Amino acid sequence: MTEMSSIYTEFELIKEIRKKLSYSPYVIKGIGDDCAVVKNQGKYTLLTIDNMVENIHFDMTIQKNIKNIGFKAVSRAISDIAAMGGIPKYILVSLAISTNFNKTSFKAISSGIKHACKYYNTELVGGDITKSKATAITVAVIGVCDAKPVFRTGALVSDNIYVSGDLGLASAGLALLKAKKDVPKKLLNAYEKPIAQIALGNLLRKKAIVTSMIDISDGLLGDLKHILEESNKGALLDITSLPTLKLLKTLFKKEEYINFVLNGGDDYQLLFTTREKHHNDILKISRELKIPITKIGKIVKAGFYIKENNKTIKVATESYQHKFTFDS
Amino acid sequence: MTEMSSIYTEFELIKEIRKKLSYSPYVIKGIGDDCAVVKNQGKYTLLTIDNMVENIHFDMTIQKNIKNIGFKAVSRAISDIAAMGGIPKYILVSLAISTNFNKTSFKAISSGIKHACKYYNTELVGGDITKSKATAITVAVIGVCDAKPVFRTGALVSDNIYVSGDLGLASAGLALLKAKKDVPKKLLNAYEKPIAQIALGNLLRKKAIVTSMIDISDGLLGDLKHILEESNKGALLDITSLPTLKLLKTLFKKEEYINFVLNGGDDYQLLFTTREKHHNDILKISRELKIPITKIGKIVKAGFYIKENNKTIKVATESYQHKFTFDS
Repeated sequence: MTEMSSIYTEFELIKEIRKKLSYSPYVIKGIGDDCAVVKNQGKYTLLTIDNMVENIHFDMTIQKNIKNIGFKAVSRAISDIAAMGGIPKYILVSLAISTNFNKTSFKAISSGIKHACKYYNTELVGGDITKSKATAITVAVIGVCDAKPVFRTGALVSDNIYVSGDLGLASAGLALLKAKKDVPKKLLNAYEKPIAQIALGNLLRKKAIVTSMIDISDGLLGDLKHILEESNKGALLDITSLPTLKLLKTLFKKEEYINFVLNGGDDYQLLFTTREKHHNDILKISRELKIPITKIGKIVKAGFYIKENNKTIKVATESYQHKFTFDS
Repeated sequence: MTEMSSIYTEFELIKEIRKKLSYSPYVIKGIGDDCAVVKNQGKYTLLTIDNMVENIHFDMTIQKNIKNIGFKAVSRAISDIAAMGGIPKYILVSLAISTNFNKTSFKAISSGIKHACKYYNTELVGGDITKSKATAITVAVIGVCDAKPVFRTGALVSDNIYVSGDLGLASAGLALLKAKKDVPKKLLNAYEKPIAQIALGNLLRKKAIVTSMIDISDGLLGDLKHILEESNKGALLDITSLPTLKLLKTLFKKEEYINFVLNGGDDYQLLFTTREKHHNDILKISRELKIPITKIGKIVKAGFYIKENNKTIKVATESYQHKFTFDS
């Protein structure tokens, strides 16, 4: 009667849910992008939900500032709005609270959520609180977009691939926290209090020069893979161009920091593609917003290639994925 | 350094979150009603989120049909839209999955969610899946209302109090399931597959005769208390008028079934108030939709009174509430 034990990835489970789903003409993007997009009378509404679970996405025993758990839960969800080029407007928060939680922690997380709402100029309009075996913060965001949002699907052959900010900082910070070592403030903030790139996403969309965009929450390779799959393209990644901090090179061995940069996840930077002719526009936006933007590769017809020191090799992409083990 | 062990109710925690929250003029109802309400260019958007957690809201060891866990998670959230008189349009689902969960259960719950979406003519536009120590289904609903929704705040002195359907069925069904006894189908369905009263809520709002409304998820007394608190009024409840099934009287002792009817929760019926002059309109709506609607009492200036066999006594309201025990 019982089935064999089996391991599922998040993407396989999502595939199961997507089965037999069909949409009305109002839903121009359903499950499968950073946000769902509803278009009604020329207006675009963005909808997304994200869950942050104790001992999966955060760990109370190593967290330096409990308030930041609330802030990060909001940033994570709002980062999906940034990845579509939208503006967050309203959020709903569902809190599942474990009984090992104390009153001070509850107040701190609640205050972090409200702090994030103020920071993103977003209104906390509703919520739900329940007991649970595991503390979890689920955030749903309702956002808007004054023109068509940017999807994962539009990357074109010969497009440049860009990424904002520095990579691998959050996972490097987490590694130091886990090892009970000193954590430089930049790495601690990257992990505990990431900032969603709302202004950048919105400006890129307004200029209408971006062919595809995603936020890096699953790691650079994992999220680039999403763009490639949804756009049905390949990529050539110049590994020497990947932006990170010198700090990582002094604190970690080469294979460690390269892993953080490629697969670290939790960075909440934007990864996007444009035509080569818009390269100067991208540099101008970078200067205007004072956000580093780096060209890291090219879209190709198919396959995944990594270039390092004039050598180009074909590789299989790998990235962090939640694995779900079912007992029976 | 550590604080005393303390117990919080859900309402006290919500109070903590509501502290220092202020809203833009677009948000005509924030935290504190069944849904948040955003008004923009004459249009009303309803927003709500609800979490259903394993071993708090459902129990895999006694559940007869796993698919219904998915259906109920959607019904619970959509019932909040019914309580405002709105129509659900889009839902987002966040699934936290425990490792003791099996593939068949995942498929069943996913299918129950999609079945509910079809039933309520609502589109599942986005989701999120994560691992967790406790399985949980969080549903956010985006609904609409073509005129001002019905709040909890408008009950007037001398208003009649009405309730739809029969009370206590879900909690009676749960009690039988827990006791491993046979469960009559009506009670099993009331517990495992409740139906949100969308058509009734919407028609009541359209007729513009309802002064306040709420759905009964916390039990009749608990939810009536919400209306009384938000409307700053009291009530006289005619206990002999409370609608339930004869079945409950044959299966349970008097104090048991009265407790189910008053405090059972999980009924998802609508509790509402109107002026006496609209009594015939209410009866007409009841006939039209083939949904029993019963007058169960009157709104008074203050206090809470129960009338039974011509005796009226003043009582303290009590209802099921999640209690949160903080260790330190």
